[in-house]
Amino acid sequence: MSNRQNCDSGCLSPLELYERVTTQGDKVRSLKTAEAPKDEIDTAVKLLLSLKLMYKATTGQDYKAGSPPTDFTPINNAPAITEDDDFVDPWTVQTSSAKGVDYDKLIVRFGSSKIDKELINRIERVTGQKPHHFLRRGIFFSHRDMNQILDAYENKKPFYLYTGRGPSSEAMHVGHLIPFIFTKWLQEVFDIPLVIQLTDDEKYLWKDLTVERAYEYTIENAKDIIACGFDINKTFIFSDLDYLGMSPGFYKNIVKIQKHVTFNQVKGIFGFTDSDCIGKISFPAIQAAPSFSSTFPQIFKGKEDIQCLIPCAIDQDPYFRMTRDVAPRLGYPKPALLHSVFFPALQGAQTKMSASDPNSSIFLADTPKQIKTKINKHAFSGGKDTIEEHRKYGGNCDVDVSYMYLTFFLEDDDKLEQLKQAYTSGALLTGELKKALIETLQPLIAAHQERRKQVTNEMQALAQALIEEDHGE
Amino acid sequence: MSNRQNCDSGCLSPLELYERVTTQGDKVRSLKTAEAPKDEIDTAVKLLLSLKLMYKATTGQDYKAGSPPTDFTPINNAPAITEDDDFVDPWTVQTSSAKGVDYDKLIVRFGSSKIDKELINRIERVTGQKPHHFLRRGIFFSHRDMNQILDAYENKKPFYLYTGRGPSSEAMHVGHLIPFIFTKWLQEVFDIPLVIQLTDDEKYLWKDLTVERAYEYTIENAKDIIACGFDINKTFIFSDLDYLGMSPGFYKNIVKIQKHVTFNQVKGIFGFTDSDCIGKISFPAIQAAPSFSSTFPQIFKGKEDIQCLIPCAIDQDPYFRMTRDVAPRLGYPKPALLHSVFFPALQGAQTKMSASDPNSSIFLADTPKQIKTKINKHAFSGGKDTIEEHRKYGGNCDVDVSYMYLTFFLEDDDKLEQLKQAYTSGALLTGELKKALIETLQPLIAAHQERRKQVTNEMQALAQALIEEDHGE
Repeated sequence: MSNRQNCDSGCLSPLELYERVTTQGDKVRSLKTAEAPKDEIDTAVKLLLSLKLMYKATTGQDYKAGSPPTDFTPINNAPAITEDDDFVDPWTVQTSSAKGVDYDKLIVRFGSSKIDKELINRIERVTGQKPHHFLRRGIFFSHRDMNQILDAYENKKPFYLYTGRGPSSEAMHVGHLIPFIFTKWLQEVFDIPLVIQLTDDEKYLWKDLTVERAYEYTIENAKDIIACGFDINKTFIFSDLDYLGMSPGFYKNIVKIQKHVTFNQVKGIFGFTDSDCIGKISFPAIQAAPSFSSTFPQIFKGKEDIQCLIPCAIDQDPYFRMTRDVAPRLGYPKPALLHSVFFPALQGAQTKMSASDPNSSIFLADTPKQIKTKINKHAFSGGKDTIEEHRKYGGNCDVDVSYMYLTFFLEDDDKLEQLKQAYTSGALLTGELKKALIETLQPLIAAHQERRKQVTNEMQALAQALIEEDHGE
Repeated sequence: MSNRQNCDSGCLSPLELYERVTTQGDKVRSLKTAEAPKDEIDTAVKLLLSLKLMYKATTGQDYKAGSPPTDFTPINNAPAITEDDDFVDPWTVQTSSAKGVDYDKLIVRFGSSKIDKELINRIERVTGQKPHHFLRRGIFFSHRDMNQILDAYENKKPFYLYTGRGPSSEAMHVGHLIPFIFTKWLQEVFDIPLVIQLTDDEKYLWKDLTVERAYEYTIENAKDIIACGFDINKTFIFSDLDYLGMSPGFYKNIVKIQKHVTFNQVKGIFGFTDSDCIGKISFPAIQAAPSFSSTFPQIFKGKEDIQCLIPCAIDQDPYFRMTRDVAPRLGYPKPALLHSVFFPALQGAQTKMSASDPNSSIFLADTPKQIKTKINKHAFSGGKDTIEEHRKYGGNCDVDVSYMYLTFFLEDDDKLEQLKQAYTSGALLTGELKKALIETLQPLIAAHQERRKQVTNEMQALAQALIEEDHGE
């Protein structure tokens, strides 16, 4: 894991980094000379800055034109706090900024596209629906090929949704709901099939778990996911451990992907090492395969050319960069993507909410009292230290976790704006903002728990009926 | 170029020769990595072996990677061809000895045990059957834990057989039958279940094949294997591409094995490199999984502790060394093994018979005339150059391919011994020995073709019945 952190951005040597900075510097100068458009220059400058910081992080020295690195001190701990220290991969999200990860920079680094006003307007125009507040508020902020999907929708060509979850414990937290809430909205708007992958095999490979326990987590997580209320006639939710052993299409696609990806490639993308087990090394193909419609012959009747749209948190993008690289070589369409920001931990946006740290998380099974206590006790506040100071200077919504959570869960734009104004001006105190969050979350979670109970009952009734049918035979 | 020609590679200095060996070794490895055509690899391996011999002839020392020659005793004539030149892995078998691979040395290198007189006697005692001529003649020559299997049989504890084949083309040759003929005998003697894996996924990963073509080869090969006449009530033959997608046990065992084997390990065992695809890297787990009874819940009713006995050619042992290493960590019994020698190419025992070289092989689909022509034209002879010399000095059975084949296929011990005596004494000429082989093989292959025709007809009838059943519904 620590190797992987040092290895960020491709394990470039100091000399390679030096050359990258030099080349990028030249590019910025030539763009300026050519009076290129401002945003193009800005993007190039941002990349230059980030390369310079990476150079400093690697060598411990400032970049100096004309002085290639000769002797350098590798540094073990993170350098001074800057937004450039963001570390994002499918297993770790870490930044030193209380505002959270710099997502504009991530778009540049990952090579995706920003979801801008124009795209949001097109979604509204094409679907005739008001864009979801996750779109309006930049919670889903980045995409790949979303315009292709909108073209397909306009031309009445089929496409489908794919999302998923790694069931690492029985308990899901509110942050885990984000992709599912948004996917449900997309399914309603587009009226299309959805597949949901539960990667219990991944969790078995990465964690100290038995196969049986990983599968139990899958069942428990599936109840929470089903409780989100997808269209039951158009949704297929599956465990890898189950579905791989009952699908005539899944393994064939996995082995096709595995033939077209080398160890060098997964090493570069995921930071695997020679000491990693061969299960981890080949796993990316298993998360990639549901991006291709032939993985689900029972749904798509053997059609191989139906494009897939994947809503997910941006840390999952490496899997799908790999998938998009492989797709044309298999004769399949590349999946399109919609990327969300991370859901911040209660303690602050430096890291994402993690189920393995109960104090950082509000769980879907928490009681109203637990919700209230956790928010009051742990939610990082952007307010001032004393009431007097707060009234005078106001709170800082950019770092306030309660405010951040409200952007996710308070749908009413006007009310959210009022809270922001009042908090920023000092009229609203931290305790009052927390109260607004508690009152937003408690009924949402209570309603979720009610639906989950119904799902559990229906599953039990179904199991009972199957047992009776068996006995009747 | 002209200089070198005059010099006939003999006037290279030890250091130059050392460098040639090193370079040629690298070339062989890169050809294998790049999946170069087999004949290209074979040529490169042959050159490597001859360079090594030249190195030894020049320096009096064995070539050792990383140890350039320092002090050496030049010797003038080439040393006796030694067994140190044998190369054996699941993809290549190569030796410079016309007698074939030195199997005693292989037993030491692989750490298996010799099938000695004592073990053969015990098999006879325990089963009450005359040991198969493959055992009596050292064709199955090495084992792991065979005494455990005999203990289990004596104590009426269950065990099962597992063998397989990689379907690399439609055409199987007579050498491919060896493990199946012996497995059929074991099944009859012990009256136990047998599973046969067809690794079409492996062939897809290693060769320039589509998934569909690899599956077609599986179907064609399955007909030849079924024609061997296994107990149809106790035999399960499966394609990986099929069975992985329909078994609730297979993938679970694969992922368990994959969790317990690192890239470092498969690199050491199979020589994989960073440029290999992740499919190859994780494949060994797929060949390992059928060694565990829980891979077949439909056969063993979920029992996880039924030991497995694997008859196979010794080049497959690396897979099962790995399996035996993993088994205790999964709480499964280690598979036992019975290893056969390789089936020599028509041109001589320096390499095994290969379906990709038609001149080296007698195929199961060959006509009586083709069999006769190939043996007469290509089978390497241990006879002398002239009839006079042959009558005087006799032939050499140790290198004579026709005689070797007779040890595989002529069951009558007395007749084989007579042929050997007569050939060695010079009373029997090469043409007469070849005639004896032709007359042994022709009826065996004709009978096989007859059974294969029956199998094909039965499969067609079954398919027809299934289609009619479908229409009837």
